[in-house]
Amino acid sequence: MTAAGQHMAAEIAEQPAVLAGLVARRTEIADVARIIARRPPRFALLAARGSSDHAALYAKYLMEVLLGLPAGLVSPSTVTLYGARPDLRDVLLVSVSQSGGSPDLVEFTETARDRGALTVAVTNTPSSPVHKAAELAVDIGAGTEHAVAATKTYSATLLALYLLVDAVRGGDGSAATELGALAEQALAVPVQRAIDRYRFVDRIITTGRGYSYATALESALKLAETSYLAARAYSGADLLHGPVAAIDEETAVLAVTGAGRGGAAMRQVLAAVAERGADVLALGSAAEDAPADVRVPVPRVAEELAPVLEVLPVQRLALGLALARGGDPDRPRGLHKVTKTR
Amino acid sequence: MTAAGQHMAAEIAEQPAVLAGLVARRTEIADVARIIARRPPRFALLAARGSSDHAALYAKYLMEVLLGLPAGLVSPSTVTLYGARPDLRDVLLVSVSQSGGSPDLVEFTETARDRGALTVAVTNTPSSPVHKAAELAVDIGAGTEHAVAATKTYSATLLALYLLVDAVRGGDGSAATELGALAEQALAVPVQRAIDRYRFVDRIITTGRGYSYATALESALKLAETSYLAARAYSGADLLHGPVAAIDEETAVLAVTGAGRGGAAMRQVLAAVAERGADVLALGSAAEDAPADVRVPVPRVAEELAPVLEVLPVQRLALGLALARGGDPDRPRGLHKVTKTR
Repeated sequence: MTAAGQHMAAEIAEQPAVLAGLVARRTEIADVARIIARRPPRFALLAARGSSDHAALYAKYLMEVLLGLPAGLVSPSTVTLYGARPDLRDVLLVSVSQSGGSPDLVEFTETARDRGALTVAVTNTPSSPVHKAAELAVDIGAGTEHAVAATKTYSATLLALYLLVDAVRGGDGSAATELGALAEQALAVPVQRAIDRYRFVDRIITTGRGYSYATALESALKLAETSYLAARAYSGADLLHGPVAAIDEETAVLAVTGAGRGGAAMRQVLAAVAERGADVLALGSAAEDAPADVRVPVPRVAEELAPVLEVLPVQRLALGLALARGGDPDRPRGLHKVTKTR
Repeated sequence: MTAAGQHMAAEIAEQPAVLAGLVARRTEIADVARIIARRPPRFALLAARGSSDHAALYAKYLMEVLLGLPAGLVSPSTVTLYGARPDLRDVLLVSVSQSGGSPDLVEFTETARDRGALTVAVTNTPSSPVHKAAELAVDIGAGTEHAVAATKTYSATLLALYLLVDAVRGGDGSAATELGALAEQALAVPVQRAIDRYRFVDRIITTGRGYSYATALESALKLAETSYLAARAYSGADLLHGPVAAIDEETAVLAVTGAGRGGAAMRQVLAAVAERGADVLALGSAAEDAPADVRVPVPRVAEELAPVLEVLPVQRLALGLALARGGDPDRPRGLHKVTKTR
């Protein structure tokens, strides 16, 4: 019998070493990138489920901005339920799955390869079916994840995707070299005030723009699956198109406010939610300057790498809140490590 | 001064006529489709915000399943915030916006056209900037929408996208000919029991699979923006990957359960949420046979057209709940008809 949240806490703490290890192995990823660069795709598709879906969205931004490559997220059911057989020549398919075991991702990857796509698996399980189904593979090397809530596999997946995309454009991953040390700093940022403040909260909206929209999505999922909060993410732009109406004094808003362009575009969003009386938690490298009730600063890094660091205090917040509310995030109700959907 | 919800009620009631009118004008849409078929794209992108984003997701399924065309939803900020200039030759961009006025969609459409995409606007406003920015245009012809919550423009957009995709594959839209009459029937389905039951609910999860995932997304948005509920949508597959842990006896689950393959794949999801004690509202053409606490049946139609009908009782539920809770859905807090985000 382990103490509540012990696995999740241990794996959160491993992240500086996991990230530093991945940076050190980046030539392995560059080898995969070289093969992609030799067969340059015209479009990219990303297939994933759960937390990995947020990593996939992050990769979509990277590919469009850094590579000028139009990219889309896959809806596996078009293939697995409806038998679609799309023409995927000149398409790069990146299948992202920590376990590598989802049957729908395996089937989609096999179909995509059969239909002409260059397929790459990004997983934490080199022997997994998704890994085997793909032509190329990147092992994120985060080590066994015992906790049910993904933490180290999420941050490592983000970094692996960054290193892959950066290497495809000919980069050497140098913007990432300090990530291990910066992650150490990010994990030392105090979150107790936020835990105390949200001990009794019922609903929370998370929001971000650009690369950090992925952080907002992952924050909502992590809070929902560990603390059973009604947590929902919106891109800052979508929030203003309607759902802002549901925000009032009873709503907590976690707003990702980084120092880059995505964070700058969040100013309008912060003003709109403040006007409605929401309780605002600003999190990110520009949090210190944000109009907010609680601020969780995150060390500054190149904007496209910010999501790797932003998620770290979010994980500690989710763990702390779950424990404060009497739960055990290592034994969430009804959550299994590999879910078999088709 | 109008009575609460009067605009929304009137526009919900217009839908049978709007849908029948669009079916009658389908040769106009076929003309646009012919131009697309002559310049066959290899990849499709869909750009939208808010409710239109759900219509865009529906179109993505249509394109992948009916045309075998890989498709992705656009994140406009890659272009508007980060200045991405992707190579969009052989790409079909469909920009979906009822108002046609969102500056980020205008900018994305202009950039896509400049970068080689064949651009099509699907809007309710032929004089709008998005309409003008695109090379081709489809007017959904729903008439002026006075209510702030989109209803008739949503269902008309779905149908316009179906007719467009069907015509690209050489279809004549015949599966849609009865939609006006079926919509009349769908609007006559009683929803008062569901309104009474959810008068005091705080959180609701909506879920669907395949084509009907769009219905789940639109349902959550409509309930959140008119009744200020904490409503959140998950695809049935994603729900089982984690968020199911947040479902308990206090949670209402609106599950879209149609007669097709998406509905069949929902059986596993219905069993999982029932096991957790959730209060389940089954909505769709297979609702009568679903294990549920409340059932809202919807007339049967070809599965790929089901979302056009499924949303109709959802709109009446959202309107009825808003009124029962003392709100006015025509004057939601903080919601504007055209939101200017970049």
